Amino acid sequence: MEGGLNKKDWILMVTAQSPTNIAVIKYWGKRDETLILPINDSISVTLDPNHLCTTTTVAVSPSFDSDQMWLNGKEISLSGSRYQSCLREIRSRANDVEDEEKGIFIKKEDWENLHLHIASFNNFPTAAGLASSAAGFACLVYSLAKLMNVKEEQGKLSAIARQGSGSACRSLFGGFVKWAMGNVRLISKDTNGSDSIAVQLANEMHWDDLVIIIAVVSSRQKETSSTTGMRESVETSPLLHYRSKEVVPKRILQMEEAIKTRDFTSFASLACADSNQFHAVCLDTSPPIFYMNDTSHRQVLFSCLQDGSQLLIINYMEKWNRFEAMPQVAYTFDAGPNAVLIAPNRKVATLLIQRLLFYFPPSSDTELSSFVLGDKSILKDAGIGSMKDVEVLPPPAEIKDNIPSQKFRGDVSYFICTRPGKGPTLFADESQTLLDTKTGLPK
Amino acid sequence: MEGGLNKKDWILMVTAQSPTNIAVIKYWGKRDETLILPINDSISVTLDPNHLCTTTTVAVSPSFDSDQMWLNGKEISLSGSRYQSCLREIRSRANDVEDEEKGIFIKKEDWENLHLHIASFNNFPTAAGLASSAAGFACLVYSLAKLMNVKEEQGKLSAIARQGSGSACRSLFGGFVKWAMGNVRLISKDTNGSDSIAVQLANEMHWDDLVIIIAVVSSRQKETSSTTGMRESVETSPLLHYRSKEVVPKRILQMEEAIKTRDFTSFASLACADSNQFHAVCLDTSPPIFYMNDTSHRQVLFSCLQDGSQLLIINYMEKWNRFEAMPQVAYTFDAGPNAVLIAPNRKVATLLIQRLLFYFPPSSDTELSSFVLGDKSILKDAGIGSMKDVEVLPPPAEIKDNIPSQKFRGDVSYFICTRPGKGPTLFADESQTLLDTKTGLPK
Repeated sequence: MEGGLNKKDWILMVTAQSPTNIAVIKYWGKRDETLILPINDSISVTLDPNHLCTTTTVAVSPSFDSDQMWLNGKEISLSGSRYQSCLREIRSRANDVEDEEKGIFIKKEDWENLHLHIASFNNFPTAAGLASSAAGFACLVYSLAKLMNVKEEQGKLSAIARQGSGSACRSLFGGFVKWAMGNVRLISKDTNGSDSIAVQLANEMHWDDLVIIIAVVSSRQKETSSTTGMRESVETSPLLHYRSKEVVPKRILQMEEAIKTRDFTSFASLACADSNQFHAVCLDTSPPIFYMNDTSHRQVLFSCLQDGSQLLIINYMEKWNRFEAMPQVAYTFDAGPNAVLIAPNRKVATLLIQRLLFYFPPSSDTELSSFVLGDKSILKDAGIGSMKDVEVLPPPAEIKDNIPSQKFRGDVSYFICTRPGKGPTLFADESQTLLDTKTGLPK
Repeated sequence: MEGGLNKKDWILMVTAQSPTNIAVIKYWGKRDETLILPINDSISVTLDPNHLCTTTTVAVSPSFDSDQMWLNGKEISLSGSRYQSCLREIRSRANDVEDEEKGIFIKKEDWENLHLHIASFNNFPTAAGLASSAAGFACLVYSLAKLMNVKEEQGKLSAIARQGSGSACRSLFGGFVKWAMGNVRLISKDTNGSDSIAVQLANEMHWDDLVIIIAVVSSRQKETSSTTGMRESVETSPLLHYRSKEVVPKRILQMEEAIKTRDFTSFASLACADSNQFHAVCLDTSPPIFYMNDTSHRQVLFSCLQDGSQLLIINYMEKWNRFEAMPQVAYTFDAGPNAVLIAPNRKVATLLIQRLLFYFPPSSDTELSSFVLGDKSILKDAGIGSMKDVEVLPPPAEIKDNIPSQKFRGDVSYFICTRPGKGPTLFADESQTLLDTKTGLPK
């Protein structure tokens, strides 16, 4: 069997799928840039990979001359320190691998000399600010670990994914996930921040009433990257340190309790407050960072018809929430302009999608099927089967009848309806590989 | 002479003018709503009353049946507690007044029974978010104090104006003014927060190179009043208390030093950072408050031609500041969307007005004379004598030549060019009274 390394014609590959996630208690600021160790804990909801996910095929063969990677079909460099960290950490934990059927046996120590081909594909636009790097690094680490027979538990893998992209560690689990910052005093050569890992608070079945709607705004400004942005916040924002030390620890405990007890009112008020505080800290940075910038605001602008003024999605949600006496919908914005709206159940989600489509109808010539993506069953509940149904939606009940309502046609590029989802999974079916099983190159 | 009160045909009046002011270290949050005691010190620049001021005529006559007030020609109610506080506090400090020429003698104790007519006029739009209440209450208190021969020094008067509108206390002085929050532990019936007063840090001659340009944006949303907004921030923002206790005290000391030494670099970076932090705290409020809202952003949006993206005035200023290696212009935004830009000298102000007019030309059919108000000598320095000159302004030097520049025509309603100015003054000339000297009614 040792001949495996002498024969050059075999390729061993693994394909996996990983979800993206949205933080409801935000990660903003690193205490160690290289290891990617955060200044506070964070909590996220994993999004259903049926609607938003990365699929990655990793392959190994003695015929490969170098490590190579293709993202969405285009070759990208693996020379960056983040990719190198992940590859190094995974390789160092590799074990013997045997594929009896193919007659392949890779000894633990061979992994250092074998090269990898990696192909990765996002089922959503990479540039849309939908945490593609979180899903991507989670999937890379997960699939490589499977390929190399790495025996570490998921939490340990999350600490490796973290070194690719901080929030990637949270995509190693489904449902509701906490990224523990780890002990600040334990950073040393020995620990390497290895206690800064993701832990699952509850799986996706725990609170499966939740419905998540993402509004992807049409026009995108050039934004400050979150790596640069959080570095500048750490260096210049006086409020960030107070937030990380005094505010977040309490909110983490409250959010854990809200999730545990499925207390949507607490969940929503914590999520909204924490999103706002994250953007407040960005504004407190010098120079200030506007993620909820003008393009975002303009695209998601509502007309508040009760006083004739124009309000943002946030203000509208607050208004609706007050109208209904308790929070109906939680909102959260990441380092970009897209709104992520979380409804407690399908009933409220139905009302929400009706409102969103009323205020933000698509530009003409857009098909409903390309304007509302993901779980389209909400559309059915809302009685919307075609663009014609969108055009005749009546104004929401909280709007006074006698005031004309302003619409923001074309401001939202598309909506994605989703829900809490599962963590990474392996694809058994070889037809789903992204690399050709004969050549090891992208299909 | 005692017959003064028996003869009913006399009217005694005083007319005064008071400036508005712009905070460079912000006041946001009260520790006592009734007395209007702030949770931190603040520092402002008094704006030249030639360009922005309130003029107030106060009159007393035994023929007046009740206290009455007219603002910009329209009668308004004096029943609110803020007006009542100011009137009560001033009346309680009134002294004997004698006008030998008119044969009038008012005894100290008569003031309680005499009624007042008050007429007030702003030389700028009241609704434009330009601190009209600061100038208004400062002028009311100052003119009443003159009328009633109140002998308290200006600082004591500022504590009365403060009870009308917090920031009004800073308009009792010219130049650079600090509003001391006062001792938190001294609130009692005895002190009444009487140590929360304005003090002049330097008069308007101390740093008379500064040029101030206010961009008044065209469309205004309904905004959260600052009274409501700061109450909600005090109640809900975790960051506000850290700001007031830990951040502002240091900035106050640094700003005092920057003003004392005319260190524009420090002045600008402190003013910008504090404006940003104030708006950050607003965003950290539940529900969040957006003063620099979409309308503001849209109106003052710049096209940043170096990367093709659109930036806000703030970002543009940061960019320009970095281009020139040190802060050229300070910006500050109050509880509204208007930008207040402070240039260190006329040379920079000339470059600034050229840029502002390049990016934000007026809608067609606007005369230059109604688009740039205040000190028009800056226009002359900039070589701009007509709208034709505005239309042919070349792109700023920091913009690459080969990229077309986006303009935001009509986004700014008008600019006001001004400078640091003097405090309240008395008008000796009777022709400038706002009340008819015979009837005591608005002219």
